[in-house]
Amino acid sequence: MSDPIHPVILCGGGGTRLWPMSRPARPKPFLPLLGERTLFQQALDRVAGSSIFAPPTVVAGEAHIAPIREQGGDALALIVEPCGRNTAPAIALAAARLPDDAVMLVCPSDHHIGDVPAFVAAAEAAAALARQGYLVAFGIAPDRPETGYGYLKQGSEIAGGFELDRFVEKPDRERAEAFLADGSYSWNGGIFAFGAGQYMEELGRHRPDMASAVRRAVADGRDSNSTLRPDAAAFESIVGESVDYAVMESTARAAMVPVSMAWSDIGNWQALHEARAATGADAQGNVADARHELSNCTNVMAVSDGPRVSVLGLEGVIVVVDGDDVLVTSAAGAQNVGKLSGAGK
Amino acid sequence: MSDPIHPVILCGGGGTRLWPMSRPARPKPFLPLLGERTLFQQALDRVAGSSIFAPPTVVAGEAHIAPIREQGGDALALIVEPCGRNTAPAIALAAARLPDDAVMLVCPSDHHIGDVPAFVAAAEAAAALARQGYLVAFGIAPDRPETGYGYLKQGSEIAGGFELDRFVEKPDRERAEAFLADGSYSWNGGIFAFGAGQYMEELGRHRPDMASAVRRAVADGRDSNSTLRPDAAAFESIVGESVDYAVMESTARAAMVPVSMAWSDIGNWQALHEARAATGADAQGNVADARHELSNCTNVMAVSDGPRVSVLGLEGVIVVVDGDDVLVTSAAGAQNVGKLSGAGK
Repeated sequence: MSDPIHPVILCGGGGTRLWPMSRPARPKPFLPLLGERTLFQQALDRVAGSSIFAPPTVVAGEAHIAPIREQGGDALALIVEPCGRNTAPAIALAAARLPDDAVMLVCPSDHHIGDVPAFVAAAEAAAALARQGYLVAFGIAPDRPETGYGYLKQGSEIAGGFELDRFVEKPDRERAEAFLADGSYSWNGGIFAFGAGQYMEELGRHRPDMASAVRRAVADGRDSNSTLRPDAAAFESIVGESVDYAVMESTARAAMVPVSMAWSDIGNWQALHEARAATGADAQGNVADARHELSNCTNVMAVSDGPRVSVLGLEGVIVVVDGDDVLVTSAAGAQNVGKLSGAGK
Repeated sequence: MSDPIHPVILCGGGGTRLWPMSRPARPKPFLPLLGERTLFQQALDRVAGSSIFAPPTVVAGEAHIAPIREQGGDALALIVEPCGRNTAPAIALAAARLPDDAVMLVCPSDHHIGDVPAFVAAAEAAAALARQGYLVAFGIAPDRPETGYGYLKQGSEIAGGFELDRFVEKPDRERAEAFLADGSYSWNGGIFAFGAGQYMEELGRHRPDMASAVRRAVADGRDSNSTLRPDAAAFESIVGESVDYAVMESTARAAMVPVSMAWSDIGNWQALHEARAATGADAQGNVADARHELSNCTNVMAVSDGPRVSVLGLEGVIVVVDGDDVLVTSAAGAQNVGKLSGAGK
């Protein structure tokens, strides 16, 4: 049996497009958007209870400590980012603390994965490639010409996966349709497997200032009660950059493993509607608790923290009631929820 | 100058199609649906402050006494129906109390009239016909092939109006379009002018049991503090019937006056949306307080007793927030609000 994989779970991003349920005081990862468990708890659950995974490390900002401890427990290893500097430094904080030969599995904390066995199998395949020195991205099989995600273009086949030809920015509709038809493009879901030493070595090669600043921040940090607080001054000096740009597009050793695992980033209310509909909708595609009343409706979702919602004669509409806010949006409008003046409050 | 016209304002009906704002404890006439004043107050306002009208009489059920006194004052003459028996007996309660030569103007309490001078002019025309012995209905000029109202077919022209050929039940769409094209049909808005003695005489001729029961109920009633409480046993014995059937369709002396007065029965949320849009909407036909946010919307109305409403990318949708209920409906769905399981509670 191989050494266990070290999950690194990243908590970041505001989730303003899931306003009014997601708010600064109660961000998206910590909401039970699908099922009883929050997205963060589900991220922990996926890597718990098997010898495949070591105990996870969570990297998060100060604002997230309370819900992380509440939902993840006091024993969970936590690294507190002094400030947000995007994903490359966040991952490096975890990598710098692990043994060089440890394999990390970097996962967002706010996505949904419907097929957990497929996720675990892909994690093992990616870890095997990482042990051979590859920096490995999950390539999520696309099922529609999505314009909201970045894409991965696969290169030559290698044992257990593919070389990664390149990252592709969010495409327009026409290109997205061409990607889907082509078959060699997959979605970049922000899930990666790296050897910890390998990651720091690549970072040192392509972003030497970032790598040394992270090493300094960790060395000068305070560590107590399962919580590492890296040195703020060192970390703040970093110019933030995503792992995609800082490492994956620079390295000569990028690979990908294709995976089909009923994944969604739950990026907006329409994405949540689709994810919920996949697990339980009525014959008309409606999703709502029984206390709500949807009459002559198709593909309607109602979500409420209290008031009863009654909907009549509508199609493709999402209703969200939370505190002193009521949101009513079309599927297309869901993309723009984050731009509402109330969102983010 | 003629003798003044005696307004008789009828308060009845639940207004369940305006749920959740209209509820049993706070029915439609007593809500400020258009402007600062409630529909009931507007009905009083229309007949106040001129020598054309005498002080009004209000006929209502027990449940409405509190809001009537609160909104209309203690001096207002009130007749309390012991139970609901439809409009013919309700009007008779007022008629039996008035001098035989008094002319009554019977008005619902929960309609909207945008053009009050046109209403007053029609009232005077109708009263003039009533003084000649006609039983007179307002014939409201239709501006669309409405299937939700009854129609009046006009007969021969007479001085100041028309004979009333007949009442027509709510038509289907095709007939409604034919009525609109024909030009001799108008809406029955439930507004009538009668000589009080003439009304009781016609009722005695066509519904003798009803007429005598009403006379008994009034004679045996208790009258104090501007409030007449007719005898319950006598009134309960009546078989309820509308004035349309019991009197207007039976009499040989039915007439009508045509009127165009920006009338609406505010029969459902879509009707309220249209009435509000006529007095103030944005360029896209949206109607909402400034604290709400309507983004990329057309013909959307938002009404809320507290929470802020945000709507994105929708057309022809009505959102109503009241207490623990949120209603979201299409224009067509507004017809069916009264059938929701929550409506009426």
